[in-house]
Amino acid sequence: MALDPDKIKNWPFEDVEQTYTVKDSIIYALGVGFGHDPLDEGQLPFVFEEAEFKAVPTMAVVLAGPGFWLRDPKTGIDWRKILHGEQGIKIHRPLPPAATVVARTRITRILDKGADKGALIYSERDLIDKATGDKLATLSSTTFARGDGSFGGPSGPQPEPHQLPDRKPDAVCDLPTAPQSALLYRLAGDPNPLHADAKVAASAGFKAPILHGLCSLGNAGHAVLRTFGDYDVNRFKSLRLRFSSPVYPGETIRTEMWKDGLTISFRSTAVERNVAVLGNGCAEIGPP
Amino acid sequence: MALDPDKIKNWPFEDVEQTYTVKDSIIYALGVGFGHDPLDEGQLPFVFEEAEFKAVPTMAVVLAGPGFWLRDPKTGIDWRKILHGEQGIKIHRPLPPAATVVARTRITRILDKGADKGALIYSERDLIDKATGDKLATLSSTTFARGDGSFGGPSGPQPEPHQLPDRKPDAVCDLPTAPQSALLYRLAGDPNPLHADAKVAASAGFKAPILHGLCSLGNAGHAVLRTFGDYDVNRFKSLRLRFSSPVYPGETIRTEMWKDGLTISFRSTAVERNVAVLGNGCAEIGPP
Repeated sequence: MALDPDKIKNWPFEDVEQTYTVKDSIIYALGVGFGHDPLDEGQLPFVFEEAEFKAVPTMAVVLAGPGFWLRDPKTGIDWRKILHGEQGIKIHRPLPPAATVVARTRITRILDKGADKGALIYSERDLIDKATGDKLATLSSTTFARGDGSFGGPSGPQPEPHQLPDRKPDAVCDLPTAPQSALLYRLAGDPNPLHADAKVAASAGFKAPILHGLCSLGNAGHAVLRTFGDYDVNRFKSLRLRFSSPVYPGETIRTEMWKDGLTISFRSTAVERNVAVLGNGCAEIGPP
Repeated sequence: MALDPDKIKNWPFEDVEQTYTVKDSIIYALGVGFGHDPLDEGQLPFVFEEAEFKAVPTMAVVLAGPGFWLRDPKTGIDWRKILHGEQGIKIHRPLPPAATVVARTRITRILDKGADKGALIYSERDLIDKATGDKLATLSSTTFARGDGSFGGPSGPQPEPHQLPDRKPDAVCDLPTAPQSALLYRLAGDPNPLHADAKVAASAGFKAPILHGLCSLGNAGHAVLRTFGDYDVNRFKSLRLRFSSPVYPGETIRTEMWKDGLTISFRSTAVERNVAVLGNGCAEIGPP
């Protein structure tokens, strides 16, 4: 069975509603590494409800998601071969510390990169604050369906990945992950056993449970907000990147950054193995 | 105002009811260090709901507690000078992964150790599974009210602390804590800002937020269950200890253990500072 582009483009997504509490926001923040330095006052408002509490902007990616709908046989997709290729976040208003949010996913583009390479499925969802009707964030995601190329669709135009400047980084930020990071992150995000059970991880070819790609993204977002945004969530406007390779919990994520006006370009490496984990990163940080 | 022994002995504790979920049990387990080795299959059932899930026995200490009632001015106690001196846990049945539990606290003894030393207040609570009526655990706690000695009460008899054997330990277990451990543990246990806010910790004379004593206890319980109980919660019968000094999040807790029949004697040290943190430890581990 092959990928059915018409069926996917018109997939009947329903509104997804999710209520999150301050405790959920703290679990997300701890999962992406906030609070790793107990003496850092900048991190405290993300992990301590008695402070002037703030939700981590990148938490938007785990809220009111559509679930693993690509696994539905009606899509025609070989779900075992799909990868999360790219992720973008556009923040319209800072996330409330706690709220009920509503979102609906839409498919914006499907590209056919041929039998060897596979298909690219682009989706978006808007995150709405149910109480106020305000649009909080727009999430964009690219799924790489490696087994589903050559379905007879267009091969472009394909959005260009962000190019990093050709000079030494302007700043470098190392953030540790904890051996328990994936176990903690999955309580806020994706409960896929690949991130908890060593046997499942081994059957997928990994030496240990891997950190979620979106958890690595949260760490990179943390690095940018810390380095160029003074932990001010009002300044965090957008972030997008490509996933290169997974991080193992316990590794240090090094984020190299370049600042050009309000644009922060970045890439991240798992320091202990010297492996690129996130690439083509681009964030916008507003003025103070 | 002085400690009022009659008022305290007859304190009108009400039943406290608490519902906890599997997610809450996972947060407690992560908070006391389970899952620190992602390849250890013995730890997985405490942190991963798809495994044959088990609640950590020492979680009993955070369930359906009476809150900080000693702060009530009617007790006559100078609450700023109280310390948690000792804690005991007796497990009657393994804790369910999720349940609604009910408990009521009672005061069992108040000793007067004189103006220099203070008062000792002994309390107990039984933890009942509301659905079945089964008694799950009995928690016993000794509070050291340093500012309230010489109130005119008896100075004994005082229960003897458990004496450790006079030989080299039979086993040693090092368990790491994470820099975020206190921030995580407080979501399951005690939200006192002393464990989160560096300013509050500094005003209490600490260089950084300290780990909860009961979180260190959970780590020691983990060491005992791992070393002599094969992670089998059915074998965990009881544990009691004295608190000596706080652990800082991120430090390694070394637990030295002596096995005599089914009795495990133990003490714990913060390795990086070589400071005794838990003493006079005694646990009972049933046969396989």
